[in-house]
Amino acid sequence: MDLAYRFFGIEHRRILSYFRDLTSTKASKVINLETPPAQRTDEEESLDVWGFRDTHFDFSENGHVIIRGTRYELSGKELPRFLPWVREVLECDVNPRNVNPPRYPTSIPEPYIKREFLDALQKFLSPNQIDTNGEIRLRHGHGHTQEEMYSIKYTRLGRVPDLVVYPEGETQVTALVEAAKAHNVALIPYGGGTNVTDALRCNESEHRTILSVDMRRMNRILWVDRENMMACIESGAVGRHIMAELKKHGVTMGHEPDSVEFSTLGGWIATNASGMKKNRYGNIEDLVLDVSVVTAAGKLERTSASPRESVGLDLRRLMFGSEGTLGIITSAVVKVFPLPEVQEYGSVLFPTFDDGFKFMYDLAGEATPPASVRLVDNLQFQFGLALKPKSSGGLADLKSKVEKFFVTKIKGFDPYKMVACTLVFEGTRAEVEQQQRDLNRIAARHGGMKAGADNGRRGYQLTYSIAYIRDFLMSYFIIAESFETSVAWTNALALCDNVKRRLTEEYARRGLPGKPFVTARVTQIYRTGVCIYFYFGFYYKGLPNPQDVYLELENIARDEILKSGGSLSHHHGVGKLRRAYLPRIMSETALQWKRELKKSLDPMNTFGAGNQGLDG
Amino acid sequence: MDLAYRFFGIEHRRILSYFRDLTSTKASKVINLETPPAQRTDEEESLDVWGFRDTHFDFSENGHVIIRGTRYELSGKELPRFLPWVREVLECDVNPRNVNPPRYPTSIPEPYIKREFLDALQKFLSPNQIDTNGEIRLRHGHGHTQEEMYSIKYTRLGRVPDLVVYPEGETQVTALVEAAKAHNVALIPYGGGTNVTDALRCNESEHRTILSVDMRRMNRILWVDRENMMACIESGAVGRHIMAELKKHGVTMGHEPDSVEFSTLGGWIATNASGMKKNRYGNIEDLVLDVSVVTAAGKLERTSASPRESVGLDLRRLMFGSEGTLGIITSAVVKVFPLPEVQEYGSVLFPTFDDGFKFMYDLAGEATPPASVRLVDNLQFQFGLALKPKSSGGLADLKSKVEKFFVTKIKGFDPYKMVACTLVFEGTRAEVEQQQRDLNRIAARHGGMKAGADNGRRGYQLTYSIAYIRDFLMSYFIIAESFETSVAWTNALALCDNVKRRLTEEYARRGLPGKPFVTARVTQIYRTGVCIYFYFGFYYKGLPNPQDVYLELENIARDEILKSGGSLSHHHGVGKLRRAYLPRIMSETALQWKRELKKSLDPMNTFGAGNQGLDG
Repeated sequence: MDLAYRFFGIEHRRILSYFRDLTSTKASKVINLETPPAQRTDEEESLDVWGFRDTHFDFSENGHVIIRGTRYELSGKELPRFLPWVREVLECDVNPRNVNPPRYPTSIPEPYIKREFLDALQKFLSPNQIDTNGEIRLRHGHGHTQEEMYSIKYTRLGRVPDLVVYPEGETQVTALVEAAKAHNVALIPYGGGTNVTDALRCNESEHRTILSVDMRRMNRILWVDRENMMACIESGAVGRHIMAELKKHGVTMGHEPDSVEFSTLGGWIATNASGMKKNRYGNIEDLVLDVSVVTAAGKLERTSASPRESVGLDLRRLMFGSEGTLGIITSAVVKVFPLPEVQEYGSVLFPTFDDGFKFMYDLAGEATPPASVRLVDNLQFQFGLALKPKSSGGLADLKSKVEKFFVTKIKGFDPYKMVACTLVFEGTRAEVEQQQRDLNRIAARHGGMKAGADNGRRGYQLTYSIAYIRDFLMSYFIIAESFETSVAWTNALALCDNVKRRLTEEYARRGLPGKPFVTARVTQIYRTGVCIYFYFGFYYKGLPNPQDVYLELENIARDEILKSGGSLSHHHGVGKLRRAYLPRIMSETALQWKRELKKSLDPMNTFGAGNQGLDG
Repeated sequence: MDLAYRFFGIEHRRILSYFRDLTSTKASKVINLETPPAQRTDEEESLDVWGFRDTHFDFSENGHVIIRGTRYELSGKELPRFLPWVREVLECDVNPRNVNPPRYPTSIPEPYIKREFLDALQKFLSPNQIDTNGEIRLRHGHGHTQEEMYSIKYTRLGRVPDLVVYPEGETQVTALVEAAKAHNVALIPYGGGTNVTDALRCNESEHRTILSVDMRRMNRILWVDRENMMACIESGAVGRHIMAELKKHGVTMGHEPDSVEFSTLGGWIATNASGMKKNRYGNIEDLVLDVSVVTAAGKLERTSASPRESVGLDLRRLMFGSEGTLGIITSAVVKVFPLPEVQEYGSVLFPTFDDGFKFMYDLAGEATPPASVRLVDNLQFQFGLALKPKSSGGLADLKSKVEKFFVTKIKGFDPYKMVACTLVFEGTRAEVEQQQRDLNRIAARHGGMKAGADNGRRGYQLTYSIAYIRDFLMSYFIIAESFETSVAWTNALALCDNVKRRLTEEYARRGLPGKPFVTARVTQIYRTGVCIYFYFGFYYKGLPNPQDVYLELENIARDEILKSGGSLSHHHGVGKLRRAYLPRIMSETALQWKRELKKSLDPMNTFGAGNQGLDG
């Protein structure tokens, strides 16, 4: 029997278990994993910048940009084209000597904690679960918006949590909520701290003690059910650990946002997250079967997770996008999938963004797309080229030159119009081959030229290391951020053009330094539309408040996005950054419902993050 | 270009449109359809039984069961095996002379309407939009539970709507809500009236005027966007009309519940419905992009529908499963899909239910399943055979005998253990062929024998005509109903066994007549589990209150389902029928949240259907 299954080349690890169990009345064969992943010293995260402490951008001895450390594919390699390219695009004098030295940490507000409250906490938390350290408190008072990152280095955050705690189980979370209610304290749950909506930012007028509830120690995978393809995971579990642990059991949750190294399951639910491979696995709302939450009124939970059900008003749905305003998510039951038999990268070049876009449209409508498909515009394509390491010389150099010659001279691609599409295929061999056949056929229809797996893989790996660039450049007078939207197909191209045009015009009109960097990519496709992801950056030397200038321009871009038919956000969320736009997209009744709901479910505004204007 | 697209055999009607529009800044090419489908006289529905007036089961002159009318494949054909089979299975004397004549309508409560309220309505509704007719009011006060259907023929419904109105646009719906608030009237939205949860049943202690808001005239498809694959449809549009109208535009919504002939878009959302082809298109929560609702606080609406977004608390999600308790859904934006290139039926026989079940499990885990796949147990397989029309003699007769011989004697299938799996494939030719290859391979692994497209098609068509059987049999002392659940794979077989065993034991223990008919089928598969659909019926002659006996036994079955790990419902919902179980599946906090939410969003309980215990 076993041979017969392997003959078809399909993963059959489950078969052996179900023949025994599927007809029995025993509970499903569930693997209980209670041990949290070991905390490794080489996994320490920075407090003042994005990412792991072992990695940061720097200038090499030769004055080239380089990524310090050994963690990423790009680490340790000089990137000689990058600096010249930045100087050219931004028309500015970025160089190693032109430094804006960060003064991290700028002043950290003094904590405000009543003695009685601390006593109450100490009744059920051990000393190592309570943190008064200033830099730790500071870190828990911000995410990664440009304004927050600028604040902690050059200005100041006016209010941060007064205390940080690390609960280790649901009982403690319940006790925390009770104590917060008893002592009129505001609770803000903390996951990976990677939001880009000011979701963690504290209200400067918040007079109550603010307690940051850091969920990182509630990071266990409680059980994995390989037969029913579900797993129960605590909300503080971080993406990279979830992936690694589930992989040991031959499964994956399939959710890989760009922040997967640091963001948590609770954060994904609270922000209604989207992952790179949603084409294959779905977005967070498709992946989560059940959510347990500790609320101001007690625990929101269900007896068991169902494949799908109709049980009336489903309040668990409310947790998606709740951004910490309704309670503390403690665990969730999620779908899991077999690890794919095959994972392959790919890439395709297109003569223009329009061509690539039409390719994406046809792909979404006619075929099963790969797990991930992304299309960058020409500027971002150049950005990617600028981040290519020095060739090792010899054959590699020659290969690169030959490729370039072929693409531009033989195929006639214009280097200032061409774009790249990167792909990740996952599935059975048969599935992947069909996806590749369909994709290649559709790509050829639009003048696409296959550019190989290496370029695809590089493109995806780049995403993780690029995240470190913003903080580096900030010290050299460059401020930058990303923002995104979702939009119907027929509005998307115009939306991209409008945003680029508007930002460029407004930038010039204000007489700001050099030229802005504005670029877009299509990061997700649906039959009904796309997610468009923008990078926007500029040289800020000479501007007294660059973070305010940035915010003003970002708001102008958002205005243009909304006018062009785009949404407020595809996946980043609202937080405080975009709360002012809610009346533009929702009727007054909808807004009132939200306020009423918040008031009724959290009358004291115990969950006082204040996101989406839900201040209680 | 056009030839090239057809060469690949793919539907390309969209291509021509987007080359012009996709790069323009114009709004998407949207087809506006404002004319509602014409009301046809041959589409009249019965008031006292399920379905179209032109169709009902009957006894022929020969004493055989027959379906009157010409609407269905099975219509007009004698079904000679059916009566004998029923007599054998139920061990009862069902025959044309053994009648329990229905006394429909049993007493209809007098209406209670204040003059001022009627005056207020007449200000904005024309006379033909206001209905005081007794039988119409009665119809609007029930769905299709066995108890309701028994009541209107043999006992009585103690409370029904006092008045029925037919709004023709959102403005009128808003005015209705305002008038209801001003005059303290309870509103109950009405779609197809096909629910099976007592969702429309009125609270006998409701002292306020109850106004049934029948949405049937708000049935327009407002627009179809073929480029972005969306459509905007009014909530009163009925499934069969939605399908027919969208088909004219080459698209489908892909949602086909068994009630599709009569149920409405608003009803689907309000009950969190599931459709037969969810494998390909998704369930209602996957299909709906936006919902507009008139609430007690005004209109819940958004500026535009996004492919997917993260905009904080999403109150539209609350409408799924709201069962009329939070407002009146007026329209929704839904996904649409190209009509499939290929639609094929199929069927497979398995030696036992266990074999078929393991086949379903492997199918869900290893392959892309067909659009629909259902597995019936042996008893339901026999039920299907009993509903086969008399062969036309000659070759057809011989073919049938040969088939039977082959299956039982050659292949060794035991007629009292064998089961059937029916299939619907939809997609491109390539997709369908791959699905069929995979399915056949997996079926063979479990002893499956292909039984052809005809048997598959017959199985599906049977579903629509079987719906009429229950009301027919009720007049011959047989009471029957369906109920369903969702459950993880590893609990499913035991759940089926437990429910069958428990019902059979309880039935015998109570000394009830003959034997009960209890049968199960797997109607939906997920990687994480299945939907199990039960039929349960018995002979009730001699029982004074058969509907109460039925209810008691159904509750016992539900208890067994919950104990066996099943959910409260996969798709039928909660209504009033299962409200008592909510505390068993949700924490007290969850229940409290629901009550708080209802109170805050509808403080006067204007939407007074009272489902899920949300009485305000």
